[in-house]
Amino acid sequence: AHKLNRFPGLARKAIWKVGKEDPRRVVHSMKVGTALVLVSLLYLLEPLFNGIGKNAMWAVMTVVVVMEFTVGATLCKGLNRGLGTLLAGSLAFLIKYFADAPGRIFQAVYIGVSVFMIGALTTYVRFIPSIKKNYDYGVLIFLLTFNLITVSSYRVNDVWDFAKDRISTIAIGCGLCLLMSILVFPNWSGEELHNNTISRLEGLANSIQVCITGYFYDSAKQATEGDSSENPIYEGYKAVLDSKVKDETLASQASWEPRFSRYCHRTPWHQYTRVGAALRQFSYTVVALHGCLQSEIQTPKSISTLYKDSCIRLGEEVSKVLRELANSIRNKRQFSPQTLSRNLKDALQDLHSALKSQPQLVLGSRNGRTQTPKTAVQAVPHPHPDQKLEEDTKFSFSSVRNGSRGSGCQSVEHSRELTRKVLRPQMSMSAIISLEFSEALPFAAFTSLLVEMVAKLDYVMDEVDELGIIAHFEEFQGDEIVV
Amino acid sequence: AHKLNRFPGLARKAIWKVGKEDPRRVVHSMKVGTALVLVSLLYLLEPLFNGIGKNAMWAVMTVVVVMEFTVGATLCKGLNRGLGTLLAGSLAFLIKYFADAPGRIFQAVYIGVSVFMIGALTTYVRFIPSIKKNYDYGVLIFLLTFNLITVSSYRVNDVWDFAKDRISTIAIGCGLCLLMSILVFPNWSGEELHNNTISRLEGLANSIQVCITGYFYDSAKQATEGDSSENPIYEGYKAVLDSKVKDETLASQASWEPRFSRYCHRTPWHQYTRVGAALRQFSYTVVALHGCLQSEIQTPKSISTLYKDSCIRLGEEVSKVLRELANSIRNKRQFSPQTLSRNLKDALQDLHSALKSQPQLVLGSRNGRTQTPKTAVQAVPHPHPDQKLEEDTKFSFSSVRNGSRGSGCQSVEHSRELTRKVLRPQMSMSAIISLEFSEALPFAAFTSLLVEMVAKLDYVMDEVDELGIIAHFEEFQGDEIVV
Repeated sequence: AHKLNRFPGLARKAIWKVGKEDPRRVVHSMKVGTALVLVSLLYLLEPLFNGIGKNAMWAVMTVVVVMEFTVGATLCKGLNRGLGTLLAGSLAFLIKYFADAPGRIFQAVYIGVSVFMIGALTTYVRFIPSIKKNYDYGVLIFLLTFNLITVSSYRVNDVWDFAKDRISTIAIGCGLCLLMSILVFPNWSGEELHNNTISRLEGLANSIQVCITGYFYDSAKQATEGDSSENPIYEGYKAVLDSKVKDETLASQASWEPRFSRYCHRTPWHQYTRVGAALRQFSYTVVALHGCLQSEIQTPKSISTLYKDSCIRLGEEVSKVLRELANSIRNKRQFSPQTLSRNLKDALQDLHSALKSQPQLVLGSRNGRTQTPKTAVQAVPHPHPDQKLEEDTKFSFSSVRNGSRGSGCQSVEHSRELTRKVLRPQMSMSAIISLEFSEALPFAAFTSLLVEMVAKLDYVMDEVDELGIIAHFEEFQGDEIVV
Repeated sequence: AHKLNRFPGLARKAIWKVGKEDPRRVVHSMKVGTALVLVSLLYLLEPLFNGIGKNAMWAVMTVVVVMEFTVGATLCKGLNRGLGTLLAGSLAFLIKYFADAPGRIFQAVYIGVSVFMIGALTTYVRFIPSIKKNYDYGVLIFLLTFNLITVSSYRVNDVWDFAKDRISTIAIGCGLCLLMSILVFPNWSGEELHNNTISRLEGLANSIQVCITGYFYDSAKQATEGDSSENPIYEGYKAVLDSKVKDETLASQASWEPRFSRYCHRTPWHQYTRVGAALRQFSYTVVALHGCLQSEIQTPKSISTLYKDSCIRLGEEVSKVLRELANSIRNKRQFSPQTLSRNLKDALQDLHSALKSQPQLVLGSRNGRTQTPKTAVQAVPHPHPDQKLEEDTKFSFSSVRNGSRGSGCQSVEHSRELTRKVLRPQMSMSAIISLEFSEALPFAAFTSLLVEMVAKLDYVMDEVDELGIIAHFEEFQGDEIVV
């Protein structure tokens, strides 16, 4: 009821949007209309009607039910409907054959029992996942036709004619649907799956790039905040997150479609769903990375600036790999896992060595917080001058005193005393460090997720590589396609 | 074809498994069988057949098509079928009324045009998301019936009887289906959605607990490794990840079901999908956390042991909150967000202060690696004795030499020299630190994800709280239900 309260303007907008999003929908609507008119001619034109008879109605019904958006879905439904009808017809005749002999009441009981048995069995069978996936509609139609024929056989004498009519009209309807969907502006499920996979790879590549840039540049960050529905990062990965059902439907539809690849290889649609699964696993890391960006505890600039270049480089490498994978699928060309891995490993190594080669981070960042990041980097190798001076003087005092005592058998005690003194600045420094550690936490998580992401990317590369091999993509030659 | 190659043993197993997983499926199959027998009686019994006529077949077809597993789905399909048929009948008569006047050919063209128009329009309308969600089947049946009546009207004279028959047989079929599904062992979509939400909350609670324990205890970790399909952590969250489509289907089916709550409130099924969405967001963090566990770079025990208790406590608090939310939904009792938040905040605070209060971590963990964790903690305040001694002696030498020179106008140069020397041990130490930093990285990520998880948990709590309010859960009283 609440749907009726909507304004007509809103409805008009929704109607317009549906067509604008995907103009193929308008075309498909026209196709259905045309198919319906064509099938109605069976009924409207005298000569055709005389050939088929009044059961021509079933052809109309078949067109309404079978005509789907993509070729795969139409084929799946059409073949299911055809096979289901045929099988049900055969079984019904078998059962009728046994039921033919005795009296009226026995016949009715016999029909009732077989209807119950077949009804319960087929309904149960429809729960089996592998049946449900591909043959659900076929089993339904099987049950429908079986009941139609078996029950009719009780009153109609020429059940044979009845069954023949049903099978032929359904065949006509299915045939028309298939012709319409294959020949007139066909929409291939396989193509859609293919394109979806490509666009998801590219979407993720964008997400990661925006995400990592956003982490290091506030201006970018502000742009990415705001309404989450218009967030470019979220836009990039949201299609991946809930892709499972869609992918599997498309893949199972596509497996019904005639293969149209160059050398008549079966296109391995199930491998696309595996790529999709690996991508989903990958995207969970991207979500977590996005979480770092939105996190309220932010790493001080002084820390993140030190690793900015390495992180951005790694992010760019990851994006590049994703785009390369997308191109590989798009152009049906294998990629070189070695080359891509090498760049990635280099970038990873770069980050690792950046993390190791800048030990001054932990020492200097405290000062860095009050200065601009750039000077912080420069200031880092030299501890704070004042503090240092103070400590220096302490040392010089103590060393002077120690020097006056001279060294000898007391050297052990003396060194202990010194230890305590040397320890002091260290202790105060370690306090600084620990503070830094908890401040560096979000950044550490960010880095760690980046590394994790690279590990997950490996799986994606493996699956795409596998896809290239199974689908007989053109083999990789030379370096020219690797950017 | 490859499905046919499967062994009959495998098929028997699959058939057995389907029933074992959910015995309601067996019951449902029996129900369908019974409903089919009942509706066949319309055709088989003389007095009933005389009342309905040979179109009784349509009732059989309706039962086959409309009878679904849950009440909601059956109601949705039944009402859609009924309404679609009614509307199509009215429209067809309207169109026929205008077409009645002129000659035969004009009539045929008129029928063709209207079939095309209505066919294209309804197909297009089915793409609109809000229609697709709830009324897809109704629009399909509308188109079917419209074509049936309009096209028939060309040859059949008493179309009114025809339409009446169709509407009444469909009504009988739908009525029977509804009675069967509501009165005989009903399966409610809403109930399933409710139970799914509860079991997902509990699954996540288990996941987190196993995950965090596994992080700190190797034995648990080994148990959780191995085949990912039998991994208890993965088991816990995998149901959540791909729950979107399932949830939304169940929620839209449930919205067709008669409300059966105590005070006749509408149960806000859409709020369950929101809880589900928040849970999905939450679960992405759990996936990332699981990734930390599987990561090849592991944090040295000495580091993680220091924070073990805080982390485990936080993990337990999170699990407890999830279980509390599950109980709240199960018992339809509101929970106290304040109490739950308080415990959670305490645990979080605990972790924060643990991170801040143990500055020796970064200094001492290097030694800790070769020692047992416990002694590492104790050993931490004192740097490595040998190394220290060596540096001490250096200092004492230099200080002796400095002392012999005496202090005066050269004190600035002298202090500079000292600076260099004081700096050296610091530099070498900071090298240690940086190593520790990169070793601590995975742990930092782990901790950071824990914190992130708590933030995401807040959204889940908000949604469940909202659910409690909208669904008029029993109000929270006292502390007794908070563990």
